[in-house]
Amino acid sequence: MPMPITTDALIIGAGPVGLFQVFQLGLQGVSAHVVDTLPHAGGQCITLYADKPIYDIPGIPLCTGRELTERLLRQIEPFKPQFHWNQLVSTIERQRDGRFLIGTVHASEPQSWFLAKTLFIAAGVGAFQPRQIKLDGAASLEGSQIHYRIDSYKAAQALGNSHEATKDQHTVILGDGEVALQAALSLSKVTNEKSDSVECVSQISVIHRREVFSAETDTVLQFREQVNAGNLHFVPGQIVALDVSNHRMQALQVLQPDGQSARLPCDQLLVLQGLSPKLGPVAEWGLALERKQLAVDTETFATSAPGIFAVGDINTYPGKKKLILCGFHECVLAAFGAMNIIAPEEKVLLQYTTTSSKLHQRLGVVPLPDL
Amino acid sequence: MPMPITTDALIIGAGPVGLFQVFQLGLQGVSAHVVDTLPHAGGQCITLYADKPIYDIPGIPLCTGRELTERLLRQIEPFKPQFHWNQLVSTIERQRDGRFLIGTVHASEPQSWFLAKTLFIAAGVGAFQPRQIKLDGAASLEGSQIHYRIDSYKAAQALGNSHEATKDQHTVILGDGEVALQAALSLSKVTNEKSDSVECVSQISVIHRREVFSAETDTVLQFREQVNAGNLHFVPGQIVALDVSNHRMQALQVLQPDGQSARLPCDQLLVLQGLSPKLGPVAEWGLALERKQLAVDTETFATSAPGIFAVGDINTYPGKKKLILCGFHECVLAAFGAMNIIAPEEKVLLQYTTTSSKLHQRLGVVPLPDL
Repeated sequence: MPMPITTDALIIGAGPVGLFQVFQLGLQGVSAHVVDTLPHAGGQCITLYADKPIYDIPGIPLCTGRELTERLLRQIEPFKPQFHWNQLVSTIERQRDGRFLIGTVHASEPQSWFLAKTLFIAAGVGAFQPRQIKLDGAASLEGSQIHYRIDSYKAAQALGNSHEATKDQHTVILGDGEVALQAALSLSKVTNEKSDSVECVSQISVIHRREVFSAETDTVLQFREQVNAGNLHFVPGQIVALDVSNHRMQALQVLQPDGQSARLPCDQLLVLQGLSPKLGPVAEWGLALERKQLAVDTETFATSAPGIFAVGDINTYPGKKKLILCGFHECVLAAFGAMNIIAPEEKVLLQYTTTSSKLHQRLGVVPLPDL
Repeated sequence: MPMPITTDALIIGAGPVGLFQVFQLGLQGVSAHVVDTLPHAGGQCITLYADKPIYDIPGIPLCTGRELTERLLRQIEPFKPQFHWNQLVSTIERQRDGRFLIGTVHASEPQSWFLAKTLFIAAGVGAFQPRQIKLDGAASLEGSQIHYRIDSYKAAQALGNSHEATKDQHTVILGDGEVALQAALSLSKVTNEKSDSVECVSQISVIHRREVFSAETDTVLQFREQVNAGNLHFVPGQIVALDVSNHRMQALQVLQPDGQSARLPCDQLLVLQGLSPKLGPVAEWGLALERKQLAVDTETFATSAPGIFAVGDINTYPGKKKLILCGFHECVLAAFGAMNIIAPEEKVLLQYTTTSSKLHQRLGVVPLPDL
């Protein structure tokens, strides 16, 4: 195990509430590390409504999820949080001295370790992970013939092409959103450029229940053009089984809208059905749960484990409303609650950012002097 | 008694939290009336720090008290709140049908009456009232020779001048802030213009403990110029008693910084020592109090009286921090709590401003259609 990063506070989740937790800890003079399973800040705000309007942030009559994220990132700049992207916290172990040893897993890098006095779970509805297909045999084909990320598909293609460059390739994309259709358009472009010069004949199909898409209007129009031109295929229907022989997927069994079955040849299946949140390992840490939410005390937003706080959509208490602005309030009380653990000898009084010179120093601002 | 205004919700206090209570009730489809003792919105934000910076409103790295107020007023526009300025709520009486009959007092207009299903006390630290002097005889001279507002002084002057226009008048202003020095400058201008043409000789003095002022730099410079030119007088010291004979104030007894006593002739005393918050009648409504704060249940922010909610600096609960952003959260839960009383038959579910077409309708916004 490498040397763990020691910190007073580790925040799990870089959504709006996790970011504001950085701010409230910063006002207390505490620097925080932040881990998130995504490669960027914003959580649901970016994943689900980056360009959609939010009307109920107090004092901000209208902003998008992306704008709110950017505003919060600007606000916490003075506190220089250290972010750790693409990390899923997998283990938490309390040490003899009361601190937590926290281990993360990373898709491609070695896992990280943290030794933290306090832990703030701001994980929202959980870690966002690609929505998977649940069919017999699918799990064992992941990474070779079934892919949940374009990166993974491209890596497999590169490998496959070098081995069987002349083979007729059938690629099927499952999904109806922006990511799925954009992937289809970009692959069809590459394939059509190649097919002029190379022997291989590749076919790219998109499969979705019915011919209605949730992608942007422009993307849908481009997709339809390519289908009409014969460069892409659209197959309406649902995948009900995989045809596998000799440990290799040969085709998909498709239930068509008219109730008939069909067989769709498939060498590579790219599943792009969006991201789905998973509470993941949080559920296994032995914290008190109520309907899959972490039960907290509204005085400090502490969970049932001293030193572990939960803020935002992941917690529950009488009256709880899953609103960003409620999470902001929770961050304040959690930061004060944590000070009893981080600096138990210190008497922490509420100070105001308008008048406190100590807070001005921490914020790095120089207010106009009074006469 | 005139016909009372009937309403689902009456909010006491138009500070930031009272304004955001309008917003949260508006999202629930409830229109609110708002009363405030001040002649404008903003409460402490305007009275105490209109031009001072606030750094801890989530998503707003920096704004002044005035800017925050303006932002909130813009945000609640769709809900068309009805404001009642310069009104101090004086009586609350529960009716047989459970509603509240609420009476206000107004400085110059007849009192107003409201019949409300629910009441939201967002009165902050209380009603702002001029800080008074506490000296024997002062109370009975209020309005004739002692004034806490410039309006009152001017009215008395107008009356006095018509009676004794040729009399030597001594006006003393007590205070060291912007309002006190601006009043001195403006009165000295009027007096000096008059004294060229009229027989009366008026003297205007400012009294304050020591020659240090809390007014703006420019104002202090102008004040010092006028003192040097002999148009204004500055008297360092504290007023320790009033010389009253024949029910008329003749002079002030002043304790000077060197410990000596002095007598300062005074016909009119204008006390401009700033505003001081008073909890006022709220303390007498029989609601459960803890250290002069209203005790609330954190599930709905209801006080000990069903139907009366308390949000913002005026309430208390375990962990309470007197921050604007915490008040915002309290407004959300109070609005949900109030719906049990306003529309008990309705099942109120949390909806999101990003996605709910019902909320879009209430906000008066037309979101982009989904494909």
